[in-house]
Amino acid sequence: MAEYILPLEKLIEQFRKLPGIGKKTAVRLAFSVLEFSAEEAEAFAEAVRGAKANVRTCAVCQNFSDGELCPVCADSERDRSVICVVEDAKAVMSLEKVKEFGGVYHVLHGAISPMDGIGPDKLRIRELMTRLTEEVNEVIIATNPTVEGEATAMYLTKLIKPLGIKVSRLAYGIPVGGELEYADEVTLMRALEGRRSI
Amino acid sequence: MAEYILPLEKLIEQFRKLPGIGKKTAVRLAFSVLEFSAEEAEAFAEAVRGAKANVRTCAVCQNFSDGELCPVCADSERDRSVICVVEDAKAVMSLEKVKEFGGVYHVLHGAISPMDGIGPDKLRIRELMTRLTEEVNEVIIATNPTVEGEATAMYLTKLIKPLGIKVSRLAYGIPVGGELEYADEVTLMRALEGRRSI
Repeated sequence: MAEYILPLEKLIEQFRKLPGIGKKTAVRLAFSVLEFSAEEAEAFAEAVRGAKANVRTCAVCQNFSDGELCPVCADSERDRSVICVVEDAKAVMSLEKVKEFGGVYHVLHGAISPMDGIGPDKLRIRELMTRLTEEVNEVIIATNPTVEGEATAMYLTKLIKPLGIKVSRLAYGIPVGGELEYADEVTLMRALEGRRSI
Repeated sequence: MAEYILPLEKLIEQFRKLPGIGKKTAVRLAFSVLEFSAEEAEAFAEAVRGAKANVRTCAVCQNFSDGELCPVCADSERDRSVICVVEDAKAVMSLEKVKEFGGVYHVLHGAISPMDGIGPDKLRIRELMTRLTEEVNEVIIATNPTVEGEATAMYLTKLIKPLGIKVSRLAYGIPVGGELEYADEVTLMRALEGRRSI
């Protein structure tokens, strides 16, 4: 533990809390901060504090926002009859880049994972349910194609279908530009199941 | 630029200033900070500020230190007749891990690189020269085996040799555990030049 002087040790520890940052990278990043000027270090610290202090979640879709409503929910042009449910804010960004979806989103902030102690009550599911008024025609479940994402999709389907709202799931299949050779068996199986006549 | 909300954009920008952190990683790290609790974000910000505010350079060897002297310079057991000159603090850590070297260090904080506008005056060379008293028998130059490290080694050799102090350089060669097949030509050439009879 006393491998580094204390202020450096503390910073390394903080960097290690970030996802995908191991010991070596944390050391490298911490040393790079020491090479910053005092103003640069201050700007960095302030950005960390500011991101947490100035970002809240949209009152409607729960996505990260710097105002009461996120840009999508504040946009009167968006179609409120279709809600796309995603696990996190990054998924919203990915979908927005496609510029294909004109509906609105709902961010769950996670997926059901009993192993990690994350039950439905830890997600923003209650907030989603309150949005399912007569105005809503379809809920597209776009959780990740993982065990947790699947479990969440199933759970939501069971909750929403009885309300008479159409529930759909993003298509599975081989990624565009990918090679069959490198696709895993489950993906290939899903791609076969979902085959379309041409 | 308005891809993300402002506080997030600012944080992404800060993460991108760190070495080896590209756009995608910066986005991932910034989002992970949003998942922190307010206390965690505060601790992170404080560690960044604290590292810069509480770390200074050792009055003797110029290595990063939280006191007037670094642990090595403060250690009376270390042999002050041998000074190992390195480019940065990370090199000191690497050498200290070997537990073989009993002398003291001198950290240059960089290497001569005219392309980047780094001349000898930007390095802690003046501080090194003031340390070269009669007590010093040998200066081991352990700058990196790069063009910049070599240029720095040559520059220092020319400065120190006339003082009648032995100047040495770390051995070049194939890394232990490495395979000849993967060694580059220059390394192989140096390994041949430095061959030893067994």
